[in-house]
Amino acid sequence: MEAYGERKPPRRGRGRRPAAEVRADILAATGALLLDEGMAGVTIERVAELAGASKTTIYKWWPSKGALALDGYFHAVEPTLAFDDTGDIEADLTAQLRALARLLSDTPAGRVIAGIIGQAQTDPDLADALLRHYSGPRRDLAVAAMRRAQARGQLRAELDLDAVADQLWGPFYHRLLLFPNLPVTEEFAVSLARNLLAGIRP
Amino acid sequence: MEAYGERKPPRRGRGRRPAAEVRADILAATGALLLDEGMAGVTIERVAELAGASKTTIYKWWPSKGALALDGYFHAVEPTLAFDDTGDIEADLTAQLRALARLLSDTPAGRVIAGIIGQAQTDPDLADALLRHYSGPRRDLAVAAMRRAQARGQLRAELDLDAVADQLWGPFYHRLLLFPNLPVTEEFAVSLARNLLAGIRP
Repeated sequence: MEAYGERKPPRRGRGRRPAAEVRADILAATGALLLDEGMAGVTIERVAELAGASKTTIYKWWPSKGALALDGYFHAVEPTLAFDDTGDIEADLTAQLRALARLLSDTPAGRVIAGIIGQAQTDPDLADALLRHYSGPRRDLAVAAMRRAQARGQLRAELDLDAVADQLWGPFYHRLLLFPNLPVTEEFAVSLARNLLAGIRP
Repeated sequence: MEAYGERKPPRRGRGRRPAAEVRADILAATGALLLDEGMAGVTIERVAELAGASKTTIYKWWPSKGALALDGYFHAVEPTLAFDDTGDIEADLTAQLRALARLLSDTPAGRVIAGIIGQAQTDPDLADALLRHYSGPRRDLAVAAMRRAQARGQLRAELDLDAVADQLWGPFYHRLLLFPNLPVTEEFAVSLARNLLAGIRP
């Protein structure tokens, strides 16, 4: 991936950085642009400049702007959407859903992920990347937390936890994608958890 | 909309039909192509030929293939997705959700509506048409049925029925758009109603 045989000090005075560091800088730059300005703010040129990387490097690692945006989005939102496990499934689910509501209402993240999901409907590579890197792992975390809650006796044993996950997170995407006129607030998040938990408790 | 002053018998031997009839034929042809072959099967040429209408007429009434497809989809699925009101909200919701599951698993309807929703994320006119003609009216029907159930004492009085609607129908679109690998079955539909109704009953 690097030009071989180059022994002279690099011309641009930044020092040659390890590939992992360049990669992290590119993702951070993409994520920052996305959450500040939405998809319209992301161009390969601006990401390259902000990250101190070449456009060639970016195109080498990400096949398209969609793929780069998805990766940058995922890295930007992952800390916000972390799933705590305090032993109280109602508190943990509610906290996670509220954090998602804040992210979607206080930043352009909602429009960004809606755009990525929209594009994925006609771009099988992006759909695959979305499932493998974003939606799949997020569902797995949620289902694993609910499975531990089942083991603790906090959720009914016979539940289809995948369907429960669809009823907790699906409503956000339903509004984002089909009802952009309806708000996604913390109150909405709390209602989702309460409506369902009252029913799925033993 | 019709060429005026034309008194001779029409040249194509079909007789001049009222605009409403032509419009219904165009929508029926579009819906049939969509549910048989999916979006790829719909071309303005084929719709024109099947409906015995001119391409000019189609373009005059629908600004784009997306708008025509949305309208055709809506007319094709409306009878299937009718919302009964038998006085038993659990039975009515479950029946409607099962009908939606059958439509989405037995026909290409799921891929069609996923494609339309995807395109709507970057096409504000299509997004507006989707909300006004499809998703908005469907939500209104569901909320009205649940409001009658509230009045009958079958649902808690203080519920946010919009959030409940997102938890009943959102899961289908969540799977269609983000998890095309997960099935949308009648069992899934039954789980959705049961998970939530146990919680939202008084």
